[in-house]
Formats: sequence, C-alpha cells, structure tokens
Amino acid sequence: MGDLTKKFWNDDPISLLRVGPCFRLSEVDPGSTPGFEGVDKRNADEALAEGAGVLSTLQEKLFAGSKFGDTRRVLLVLQALDTAGKGGIVRHVVGSVDPQGIRLYAFKAPTEEERAHDFLWRVRRRLPDAGLIGVFDRSHYEDVLIARVRSLAPPAELEARYGQIREFEQQLADEGTTIVKVMLQIGSADQKARLMERLDRPDKHWKYNPGDVDERMRWDDYQEAYQLALERTSTPTAPWFVVPAEKKWYARLAVQRLLIGALEGLRLEWPPAAFDVAAEKARLAAT
Amino acid sequence: MGDLTKKFWNDDPISLLRVGPCFRLSEVDPGSTPGFEGVDKRNADEALAEGAGVLSTLQEKLFAGSKFGDTRRVLLVLQALDTAGKGGIVRHVVGSVDPQGIRLYAFKAPTEEERAHDFLWRVRRRLPDAGLIGVFDRSHYEDVLIARVRSLAPPAELEARYGQIREFEQQLADEGTTIVKVMLQIGSADQKARLMERLDRPDKHWKYNPGDVDERMRWDDYQEAYQLALERTSTPTAPWFVVPAEKKWYARLAVQRLLIGALEGLRLEWPPAAFDVAAEKARLAAT
Repeated sequence: MGDLTKKFWNDDPISLLRVGPCFRLSEVDPGSTPGFEGVDKRNADEALAEGAGVLSTLQEKLFAGSKFGDTRRVLLVLQALDTAGKGGIVRHVVGSVDPQGIRLYAFKAPTEEERAHDFLWRVRRRLPDAGLIGVFDRSHYEDVLIARVRSLAPPAELEARYGQIREFEQQLADEGTTIVKVMLQIGSADQKARLMERLDRPDKHWKYNPGDVDERMRWDDYQEAYQLALERTSTPTAPWFVVPAEKKWYARLAVQRLLIGALEGLRLEWPPAAFDVAAEKARLAAT
Repeated sequence: MGDLTKKFWNDDPISLLRVGPCFRLSEVDPGSTPGFEGVDKRNADEALAEGAGVLSTLQEKLFAGSKFGDTRRVLLVLQALDTAGKGGIVRHVVGSVDPQGIRLYAFKAPTEEERAHDFLWRVRRRLPDAGLIGVFDRSHYEDVLIARVRSLAPPAELEARYGQIREFEQQLADEGTTIVKVMLQIGSADQKARLMERLDRPDKHWKYNPGDVDERMRWDDYQEAYQLALERTSTPTAPWFVVPAEKKWYARLAVQRLLIGALEGLRLEWPPAAFDVAAEKARLAAT
C-alpha cells in the first residue's frame, strides 16, 4: 500500500477480500468493512476523493503508455444480485476517471445473434483496447449464474464452462490484461429494503422490474451458484474479490482500492519523449 | 434558464454563443466570459458543481426513458485546435455524468478502411444509441478543416461536403438526435504557451507531437477553414456554438450549460411504472 492508502486502511482489502481456497460466501458479513480504518461515511468520502486522484493519474499513465506501444490494459468484472450497487460503483468509482480512459459495457440477456455463438463470443467483442480500463457490468459469469439457476443450458455444458472461463481469462492475462473480478455481496433483507425503495419512489420505478422479485425468490440457488463460480474460477491470474456491499461507501472504497492496486502492480511510468525536447522548444519559440 | 442557472448567469450563453448569420470568428475574444455573472474561478467551480447535479439528473431521465421506448439522444460535437481544451471538457463536464449514459468517441486520422468509404461512414458507426449522450472528440468536421487546409481532397469534393454535412445532421435530428456543436476558441499566443507547457513537463510529453507545431504554422488557414465551416453548417436544427476557451473554467461551464439546455429542451419526465406498484409491493413483502 502507498502512504495515502495507509492513512485510511489498517489492512489491505486486496488480501482481505480475495477469494482463496476454503472460501465460503456464506461466511461473508455483508455489513462488514474489512480493513477500513475510519469509522464512518465521512472518513470514507475523504478517502474516496483522495483515491480518485490517485486512480485518475494511474489511469492516465496507462493511457499515455498505450500511445507508445504499451499494450497492457485492465478489466474490471462486476457481478452481483440486483440492487447490490454495481451502478453506484460505475458512477462513483469508474466515473472519477477520465471517460476517454474507460470502456464500459453492460451485458444484458443475450440476443439471438449472441446465442448463436459460444458464450464467450460476445465478451471477446467488448474487451478493452490497450491503455484502457474495461468495465463489465455483468459478464460471462452470467452463463454460470442465471444460466445455472434457470437451467438455460444442459448440465454438462454448464460444468464445462468453468474450465473454459479459466482458459479464456488466462489467455487475456497472457496478452497483457490485468483482471479484477468483483462480486458485491448484500444480505437478503437489505435487498428487500432496496427493492421496496424503488417501488416507493417514482423516480426509481424505471429501475424496477417485476422479474427482480422472481429472481429474488431463488436467493439460495444464486448463493450456491456464486459459491461454485467463485471457488472454481478464482485463480492467481484472475482472482475474485467478494466485497461486502451493505455499506455502499465501503464497497466503493474497496473497489477503488482494488483498481488502484491493479494499476500499481503494472509499475507505470510516463512515457519518455519520442522527440528532441530542446529542438521542439526552439521550433515552437520561433512561431 | 432554470433558477439555478440564473444564479450564475446574467444572460444565457445558449443565445450569446450561438453562431448566427454574419458571425465572424475573428471577432470572438478568446479571453471573454459571455454571460457569466461571477467574476472568478471560485464562483465558476461552485456553478460547475451545481450544474453537474442538474446535468446528471437530466441524463438519467433521458436514459430511463430509453428503457421504455423513447428513442431520443443527444450528440455533442467538440472541435478545436490543439490545446484548446477538448480533453478538459470531456473530463470535467462529460465526466460528471454517469459513464453508462455516455458514448464517447475520439476520431483520429482516418484508417485505410475508413478512407475507402465516404467521409460520413465512420461517423455513422459511432452515433449514440437512444438514451445516451454521444460525444465526438473531433468529428466529420475534420473533413472540411484539416482536409481543406492540407488539400486532402479535390476542391469540388471539399465544397460538396458542407451540404452533405447539413443533410446528414438534418437526418439525425429527424431521427431524434439533439445536436450541439461546439468549437473552443483560443488565441495563438495562448496556444503557444500551452504547447510550451507540454514541453516543459515530462508528464505532458506524451501529449505533445511535433506535428502540432506544423499545424500551428497554418493558424490563419485554420481560422479561415473554421469560419467557412461555421457559417455553412450552423443551422437551426444543428447550431454551432463558439466558446471562448482561454479561461478553461468558462469553457467548461458554458459547454455544461449548452448540454443542460439541450436536455431541458426535451422536456424529459421519469417514465411511469409499467407495472402495478401496489401489487408488486405486496409480492415483494411476501418474500
């Protein structure tokens, strides 16, 4: 951790939230705030604002490097049940970075064209180019989550997908993509309250879909599907992080920290001038 | 203007900056701040922060409507000479909006594939979908700007493009796109200072290109090409706004106001619930 991070964290969420062997989703307390030194939202707002500056500069370095041949990029995968706060992460964490450095894509139910291809086809088309932070709001993991809960594919095919995902992500990593996979975890009661708020507020009705309650009724099935996905696809090259998300401020701060960590790991530098600085100064001065 | 806008503006930049008949680019003072009531950057920061909230809500309404069949969208076209501050507009104005509501595209020199098609082909592929604010960092106008200055096409073809652009933009407007075209205007001395700063700072070297000085040497030709483009393509359906941009805070505030004005003109409302609210509350309560 850098000095700035140490100011707000007593232990690094990168290690605290990482899904390792023996991980049990059911043991995560959705209301907890692992590693956060501050005690309230006010500390968190300060930490988020400071982190935004750090993240922003790192991203600019990544982008700058890509103009001079560095092909590396970062991919943030966001998964969660409805109302867990993916949208807030996009808005408050991703949104603090220069829009030109972001490639965001929200995956919906697959179209007919997409269903005609293997499940990774549509994902490959949305990967970030060099120098960008790609953000997947939902992802290929839906194909082992809702697809499993709703039996959208034969069992053998579902089983094979975990391995296909691991291979796919290894390949991305080999090509220079740093992958950060985040699952936002909330509790069932909290989801109920958040859905109710959408029903209470006319400016939130557009976010509500009666299908959300149908999915909610399969809560335990989803927890099981997530548990399986997490344990089978959290690898050293593409680890999962489960982020407690009942406190929205904590989830945002933790995801910001994960992104900062991923970018710091690239040891980015400003690209050296590809021209003679003194000569250019003289040329410019003469105009 | 809304109440909030009146607080900071004594006259609406939407009318003050609009390119009408008899407009002369050479008469624009790049250091001026037309319509702004405040006197300094501090007022401006406050105004920008308040405006960000307004813009953000309007954009969310546009996005929400698109989920229920509203096909309207907004397109911001940004044009300027190097260092005028397009990047700052993207970062500080566009960047204040939820990233999921933005479709940003930066046009570079056309690729071989793009050159094999008519000049509007690549632009059509980057238009915003319903519910989004599209942002063009450079655009089809390069085909009557650098293309004119550098004679990249035969004179007759260049001449024909103004009409083709007017037709193209009329068609977009007919299909529900509100177009806001912005040219950021700086002075020659200011550009020189900004380029020199890029040369002075190693963290800015990546933004510098020796070609920038070559273009700078054609300053008068570019002013003439802009004058022609502005007078021939500023139409009631797709007007141009020339924004003085030596004071970066003013340019950001003015472009924010133009976007807010465009969205206000759509008279957006939150979409009504497409479900029975009471029934859904009961169904949710039972889970």
